[in-house]
Amino acid sequence: MDARVMTPFTYFSLPMQKQFLRNREAIKDKPYAKYFSAQMNVPLSAVCKIQQGPLPLEQTMTPSIEDINRLLEADFVSEESGYALLPGPMAYVQSRKFFPGSTAAMLKWWFMWHPLEAERYTLWFPYAHVSNPCVNHERLKQTSLSFEQRLYGNTFCASEYVGDRLMHLHIHFQDPEKLGLRADLYRDAKIDGSVSALMSLAEQPEVPVSLMVHLFKETPEGLYLTSRYWVGSHPSMSRFPGAEKAAALMEANGFGEAELETLAYEFAVHDLCEFNHLASFLPELYREFGTD
Amino acid sequence: MDARVMTPFTYFSLPMQKQFLRNREAIKDKPYAKYFSAQMNVPLSAVCKIQQGPLPLEQTMTPSIEDINRLLEADFVSEESGYALLPGPMAYVQSRKFFPGSTAAMLKWWFMWHPLEAERYTLWFPYAHVSNPCVNHERLKQTSLSFEQRLYGNTFCASEYVGDRLMHLHIHFQDPEKLGLRADLYRDAKIDGSVSALMSLAEQPEVPVSLMVHLFKETPEGLYLTSRYWVGSHPSMSRFPGAEKAAALMEANGFGEAELETLAYEFAVHDLCEFNHLASFLPELYREFGTD
Repeated sequence: MDARVMTPFTYFSLPMQKQFLRNREAIKDKPYAKYFSAQMNVPLSAVCKIQQGPLPLEQTMTPSIEDINRLLEADFVSEESGYALLPGPMAYVQSRKFFPGSTAAMLKWWFMWHPLEAERYTLWFPYAHVSNPCVNHERLKQTSLSFEQRLYGNTFCASEYVGDRLMHLHIHFQDPEKLGLRADLYRDAKIDGSVSALMSLAEQPEVPVSLMVHLFKETPEGLYLTSRYWVGSHPSMSRFPGAEKAAALMEANGFGEAELETLAYEFAVHDLCEFNHLASFLPELYREFGTD
Repeated sequence: MDARVMTPFTYFSLPMQKQFLRNREAIKDKPYAKYFSAQMNVPLSAVCKIQQGPLPLEQTMTPSIEDINRLLEADFVSEESGYALLPGPMAYVQSRKFFPGSTAAMLKWWFMWHPLEAERYTLWFPYAHVSNPCVNHERLKQTSLSFEQRLYGNTFCASEYVGDRLMHLHIHFQDPEKLGLRADLYRDAKIDGSVSALMSLAEQPEVPVSLMVHLFKETPEGLYLTSRYWVGSHPSMSRFPGAEKAAALMEANGFGEAELETLAYEFAVHDLCEFNHLASFLPELYREFGTD
């Protein structure tokens, strides 16, 4: 386990601040309200790696099948943070988060539990999160099914601020193999779970504008979550039906190269804040509500 | 002296990050390069006061003569931070910063010393500052004149990022009495110096779009700097010639109410970062270069 210095994140955009006030009001009578907190701690080392500009391209990965399978190589350890603009144009974010004292079961439970009420979702990022309902709500709640059966092929409809921009995103969770991760490598890498997904804008849910890979692995000290985000267009995304429309759609929504580079930084910040914050209360929340 | 917990500021906009890299390159052969630092520490308590939305109006001040003289009342102690949108529309920022171990002489020297080279100015806010030349450079350097004679009636031409926006600002320093602060109250309040100013956009230097009040006071432990920023238009600004054009000019530059409220937060962040950072190295810098 690394000796990590945690530090409070110090900046939230003005619309996020106003959302925080609404969220704090909405949650106050919920049984889990005490987990709603204004302070979000993140590793200082991860902050330092995203405050001096984007990564050089040779340190990035594309969303190609070849590149994403590098995440499963035996000796692969992800960098803690980083962002860049890839040719495409495409926003790229890399990260690895540590959840001290958490287990794979806890994170799986979180993904089944939080979408059922908007207020639960706001615990995760009190400034940025609005709501995250699940399309197949009944299936998500079906405890007789496995985690994978409940989540894969299911969709979360996230409304959340990324920077100062309110985004409405459809997150289509998929079996990692469907996204291009080789089943044999996945098995050999001893991954304990995946919440990887294709993402689309709510207005055009049939056009995948993003691939997110989130792989978690349990250790005796806690859980490691390695993540990659790609947002925009890239030739290798053509393996996903509809992706050929992503370039025009992003452009029409005002995401040119400059905006995608900014979005990459903002997603890096968002990922850093939300997962480290979740890590700070997940074990305790699970102990209290894990049987719900 | 308050028991202050300092914390690194964790977010810099993408254009600021790129400016940081340019600044770091430009300063590297200067004799004062060791004072250029990537980490900017700020009081955590001040951060907390600007991350849950704007102040209620009853806790704000306008730039009226009546209001600004409240800063000189015998028992007045400024809040540490805060921002709001005032009717006008006008951005409002309040703050009080502590410079441990600094003296009034050091801060006065800083204002005479830093405008002479852009690289010196970048020490102050390594991510945001570009250049800050002084219009009457010769007068600023005239050591036979007093601080007030060198600065008042003189203008700094600041190019700096405020949030993700590069602003070109003319800062017209003035005798505080000219700005509306009563000379008798100023004397009784035992203020040790003022770097208060009217500010205009470089494209229209004759139109004051902002009043900044910066008053400093020395104590045995260090210097306290109380600041107020007003940016936009307000009826009480009519005492300054040209201010009647501020509303139309700001509007034409895209500063409606929403943008001014965002600007208020961004100026609050900027002020918090730059002055606390300056405080971290000013005594040492002064000891090394104070005779230049």
